[in-house]
Amino acid sequence: MSTRRFSSPDPELAELYSDLSREHLQPLWELKDLLTPTPTVQSVPHRWSAKQLRALGERAGRLVGIDRGGDRRVLACANPGLDDAPYAVATLWAAVQYLGPREVAPAHRHTPAALRFVLEGAGVWTLVDGDPLSMSAGDLILTPSWTFHEHHNDSDKPMLWMDVLDLPVVAALEAVFFEEGPSKQVDRRTDPVSYSERTYGSTGLLPPPGARRAPAHSPLLAYRWADTDRALDRRLDVTGAPAATMTYVDPTRGGDVMPTMRCEAHRVRAGQSSPRVRQTGSRVLTVFRGSGIASIGSERFDVAAGDIVAIPSWVPWHLEANEQLDAFSASDVPVLDALGLYREQAEQ
Amino acid sequence: MSTRRFSSPDPELAELYSDLSREHLQPLWELKDLLTPTPTVQSVPHRWSAKQLRALGERAGRLVGIDRGGDRRVLACANPGLDDAPYAVATLWAAVQYLGPREVAPAHRHTPAALRFVLEGAGVWTLVDGDPLSMSAGDLILTPSWTFHEHHNDSDKPMLWMDVLDLPVVAALEAVFFEEGPSKQVDRRTDPVSYSERTYGSTGLLPPPGARRAPAHSPLLAYRWADTDRALDRRLDVTGAPAATMTYVDPTRGGDVMPTMRCEAHRVRAGQSSPRVRQTGSRVLTVFRGSGIASIGSERFDVAAGDIVAIPSWVPWHLEANEQLDAFSASDVPVLDALGLYREQAEQ
Amino acid sequence: MSTRRFSSPDPELAELYSDLSREHLQPLWELKDLLTPTPTVQSVPHRWSAKQLRALGERAGRLVGIDRGGDRRVLACANPGLDDAPYAVATLWAAVQYLGPREVAPAHRHTPAALRFVLEGAGVWTLVDGDPLSMSAGDLILTPSWTFHEHHNDSDKPMLWMDVLDLPVVAALEAVFFEEGPSKQVDRRTDPVSYSERTYGSTGLLPPPGARRAPAHSPLLAYRWADTDRALDRRLDVTGAPAATMTYVDPTRGGDVMPTMRCEAHRVRAGQSSPRVRQTGSRVLTVFRGSGIASIGSERFDVAAGDIVAIPSWVPWHLEANEQLDAFSASDVPVLDALGLYREQAEQ
Amino acid sequence: MSTRRFSSPDPELAELYSDLSREHLQPLWELKDLLTPTPTVQSVPHRWSAKQLRALGERAGRLVGIDRGGDRRVLACANPGLDDAPYAVATLWAAVQYLGPREVAPAHRHTPAALRFVLEGAGVWTLVDGDPLSMSAGDLILTPSWTFHEHHNDSDKPMLWMDVLDLPVVAALEAVFFEEGPSKQVDRRTDPVSYSERTYGSTGLLPPPGARRAPAHSPLLAYRWADTDRALDRRLDVTGAPAATMTYVDPTRGGDVMPTMRCEAHRVRAGQSSPRVRQTGSRVLTVFRGSGIASIGSERFDVAAGDIVAIPSWVPWHLEANEQLDAFSASDVPVLDALGLYREQAEQ
Repeated sequence: MSTRRFSSPDPELAELYSDLSREHLQPLWELKDLLTPTPTVQSVPHRWSAKQLRALGERAGRLVGIDRGGDRRVLACANPGLDDAPYAVATLWAAVQYLGPREVAPAHRHTPAALRFVLEGAGVWTLVDGDPLSMSAGDLILTPSWTFHEHHNDSDKPMLWMDVLDLPVVAALEAVFFEEGPSKQVDRRTDPVSYSERTYGSTGLLPPPGARRAPAHSPLLAYRWADTDRALDRRLDVTGAPAATMTYVDPTRGGDVMPTMRCEAHRVRAGQSSPRVRQTGSRVLTVFRGSGIASIGSERFDVAAGDIVAIPSWVPWHLEANEQLDAFSASDVPVLDALGLYREQAEQ
Repeated sequence: MSTRRFSSPDPELAELYSDLSREHLQPLWELKDLLTPTPTVQSVPHRWSAKQLRALGERAGRLVGIDRGGDRRVLACANPGLDDAPYAVATLWAAVQYLGPREVAPAHRHTPAALRFVLEGAGVWTLVDGDPLSMSAGDLILTPSWTFHEHHNDSDKPMLWMDVLDLPVVAALEAVFFEEGPSKQVDRRTDPVSYSERTYGSTGLLPPPGARRAPAHSPLLAYRWADTDRALDRRLDVTGAPAATMTYVDPTRGGDVMPTMRCEAHRVRAGQSSPRVRQTGSRVLTVFRGSGIASIGSERFDVAAGDIVAIPSWVPWHLEANEQLDAFSASDVPVLDALGLYREQAEQ
Repeated sequence: MSTRRFSSPDPELAELYSDLSREHLQPLWELKDLLTPTPTVQSVPHRWSAKQLRALGERAGRLVGIDRGGDRRVLACANPGLDDAPYAVATLWAAVQYLGPREVAPAHRHTPAALRFVLEGAGVWTLVDGDPLSMSAGDLILTPSWTFHEHHNDSDKPMLWMDVLDLPVVAALEAVFFEEGPSKQVDRRTDPVSYSERTYGSTGLLPPPGARRAPAHSPLLAYRWADTDRALDRRLDVTGAPAATMTYVDPTRGGDVMPTMRCEAHRVRAGQSSPRVRQTGSRVLTVFRGSGIASIGSERFDVAAGDIVAIPSWVPWHLEANEQLDAFSASDVPVLDALGLYREQAEQ
Repeated sequence: MSTRRFSSPDPELAELYSDLSREHLQPLWELKDLLTPTPTVQSVPHRWSAKQLRALGERAGRLVGIDRGGDRRVLACANPGLDDAPYAVATLWAAVQYLGPREVAPAHRHTPAALRFVLEGAGVWTLVDGDPLSMSAGDLILTPSWTFHEHHNDSDKPMLWMDVLDLPVVAALEAVFFEEGPSKQVDRRTDPVSYSERTYGSTGLLPPPGARRAPAHSPLLAYRWADTDRALDRRLDVTGAPAATMTYVDPTRGGDVMPTMRCEAHRVRAGQSSPRVRQTGSRVLTVFRGSGIASIGSERFDVAAGDIVAIPSWVPWHLEANEQLDAFSASDVPVLDALGLYREQAEQ
């Protein structure tokens, strides 16, 4: 077993390289492109179309039954630049999950954190460590690292949502743990308002400090579209800008909802554009309402409700709205920020 | 000019004490009660009755015109234990402020931080650094340290609110600064929803980190009764306890609204009591709705809407509700907490 | 029992004032000087001379035996502006403590935090929660809030040190607790290097995070003059400035050694001055070596080793050195900082 | 261009899989081993021997001249489990760098952070943003993210040190930036004590808060062996344990020296062992003095001064000392910790 071997026309050097290889060493001076002026980015801008995602989801619904475990009915966005890896961008898994009428997905937990942004439907419950969170179009539901979660659809209609996970990051750090739920029987309790929201979902009020939980993530696990909608309206109102972004936050700290992912809601006024920026770190974005163009690097994708786009690291991007465009995005900004690697710059 | 002089029957000691006095020195061994087993508390439990506060406020309204400056029409609660100091408890100023129909109080600012809890009325605006905040019964309005603030009553009815200031703390630290507003003319702009609320008042969403203000206090300056009411309901619902307390928080940090004062809303179910506790630090509490008993040390005060009570440091207290009792309190807990001096214990 | 009563030539107003007084209320519009443009400062600049402090300390040593409890042989600096209060400035107790040969002061603890700066002598041990800390001239020894502490002099010479406590702050917050030590017998163990220093006293290294204590104060309890001396030298060297200040820090956080007091070492080059500044908050300073002038407000005090000076809030001050001047000061800056009340400005 | 295609004997499913592939989607239920019960770890325990590292370093010194840029004379440890990647473990680059007599390596900077632990020699200077840091055996030198750094050997002897970089993490986050130094001419200034050490290298003292730099990394850039040696001695002394670990810290915060790497010094008493633990995250370790065994998973490597070992994620390990064993290690713990992914457990 030996490591990569380098060659040289110089016989002395060739012999050195051979000896290095035998000792599992590599000569830095032969390693090109380790330290590049700007990031080497493998993933490419890409759009997955809602029409295809929905059609293929339904077909999978007909053909593949839900079973216990990791095998939820999930279609993973696989970035064309990432060879065969099932990742939408370098650091994020993105997928659509299709839950048929009356179907259930039993409980499990894993160290990769997940979030669900509901693209359409209502009447599904996700239970997070036993707390039942209802799901409706436009809602953001968190299933943070190492929390048990299960889904059950009490309605007669299917539901489609986007999953985003920090799986590529956790896998790269070799820290993936997984565990099946304590019982195979799905918990069908449903509360009109979850414990999480009743405790942490009030504007400007929290339980006294001693009565709060302090997990590594937000203890508020559901963010409702009505709140998001109003927040975007008010933000546009206050700034008068062509577009607004609001960040979903942990109400007990004001920081990101989970240590690995930033969640953001975007609204672009009809006929307007969001500012063009480039940032270190990767992002996936889905359109919730409206239509327009996602301009990512040199690509210009037509986008409409349910489309998912991949925005790789350090690639400039912006949105253009035909009619008012509402979108949700998740990115790895908190990771880059925590490690001192976040850079951002405005582009023309 | 000399300091306090101690005496002794021993002539040598008497001479030493005389010499110490001349040098502005005091012998520790003659200073009794500097370090006591439990806190020496000067203020006493007390209740100011809403009926008197209102009647005297109205009389003051008739007799004393509003003028520029510190001379707002304010009746300061003066704790009977604190000699002539106009403080409700050792570390807090509490007062009722009476603003007549169409009256105005022009802008000024000071390092002592203030809060207003509206006891009755609607239609008054407080402008904080120019941001117009409407005031209605049950609302909490912050005018943090060194922010310009002015009040104007656009209605035909008077308004009564409770002011709480950290003035005794800031005065003890010799850090009081004061400045008149830039103009004597009151700013009569009114917004249906303030900049502060439109920017920081959404459940679970904030502007992106780079677009947030980060003052030493909460950038959310108004907390509406409807939100407080719902939060208390949900908390009682979740805990099933006889009483609930919710803490008003800075949404950008999850901590107290101002570095010197903790604000809390309390609800006790009809026929029930809140837990009896004692804490270091002082508190003032006002009843917003309902009636019952405030049991403070060995005193039992009948309390109803608008009454203000003083709860001195380390005195056990609890509330008993006849009908459902809603109350607001402000305390200096953040100060004790920041300095490592906070202690709390449950009492029988 | 009634509160302060105000008077008025207007009979209606006089009657209102009488009624207010009966109800323990005071009219704000009659309260002058509550909110002043700049701080009302009661304490005055003052110097206590080393010669007097030492002579009176020795006399007290002869006349007053050490006994159990609060009655250590301590001469408290009583600021001439503070009436009879035994405080050096508004928020700090400062005193000299004189411990005779072979004397002991048994263990107790209290919520007011204390520090000791050794003016002269060697061979005394202070035990803090049982950890024996040797004391020598120039050392700073911390006895933080609620830590048991005792002193014993194993040498044949007396020791003189300056005590500084945050007692006025803790008393104003009504949070003083006191407890005698578990035993009247003094612990005479002595370690050449304390547990505290062996664990937290290395440059740039600490035990792994999980093995560290995290009290509200620095777990490093002794700061040696040799380190301070070298740090001041290096600072002067690096800045080339006429004077240097170094702050004593908690090595586990980099912040102040205790939540209520900032400790600083100062060095002014011979013939030079430190920058003139004014700050909110109070300070006491003692000269360790050298001589010069302490210019505080309009006062100019000649100062030499062992002198203590009081620097009240918002009074501009600086030091001038004849020969190189080394000084130690303690201030309440962390309190003002935590509460958002710290202001500082350079003066001419 | 299509993504990975899955197959099925069921023709309907096969067609679905074909369609998914065309749309760059992958079916989760066919993706095995994405979420494993415990981490999938690619790298393997490995030892690189000092004798080989030194001999090959010298050979490279003879054959390969130093030139400008990334092409320093560096031999990168390439873990046998990581295919051809030049990484010692999944998240860390480790290498030996050989700097011949009078040689220089001109300035550059990059976002991957680096550290140097000197294995032998003295008389080399590393300049970090212009601050000259001397290097001697046992010293730890930091060249944090995006700081210009250059090396020059003023002595007549070669120097050998271990480089560790967080390159795999920064590359995985697609955040590598690189820049050549402003000048090709090496800065040959040498200071007996660096600015960094003179400012931040004192025990328990720092410049006043306003005068401190607050980069994302420790402003103290050199940690001297004499300090490390004493800290380890004192730690063993205090705990009485068979082995001690001390963590290198940022003196202004008490946290890790850089946001991506934890640095630790280890000492095992002769004939004793360190505790056996497993942790998420990867580590490289080098022996500085003494000899013994590095037991990593089921491997037992004889180790002596200068050997480097790879300790992959979640593999239990400990050290056994023949004679007293001193070692230095760097790990990615701060990354796992910041992201809520750190787990540690004691093993038998």
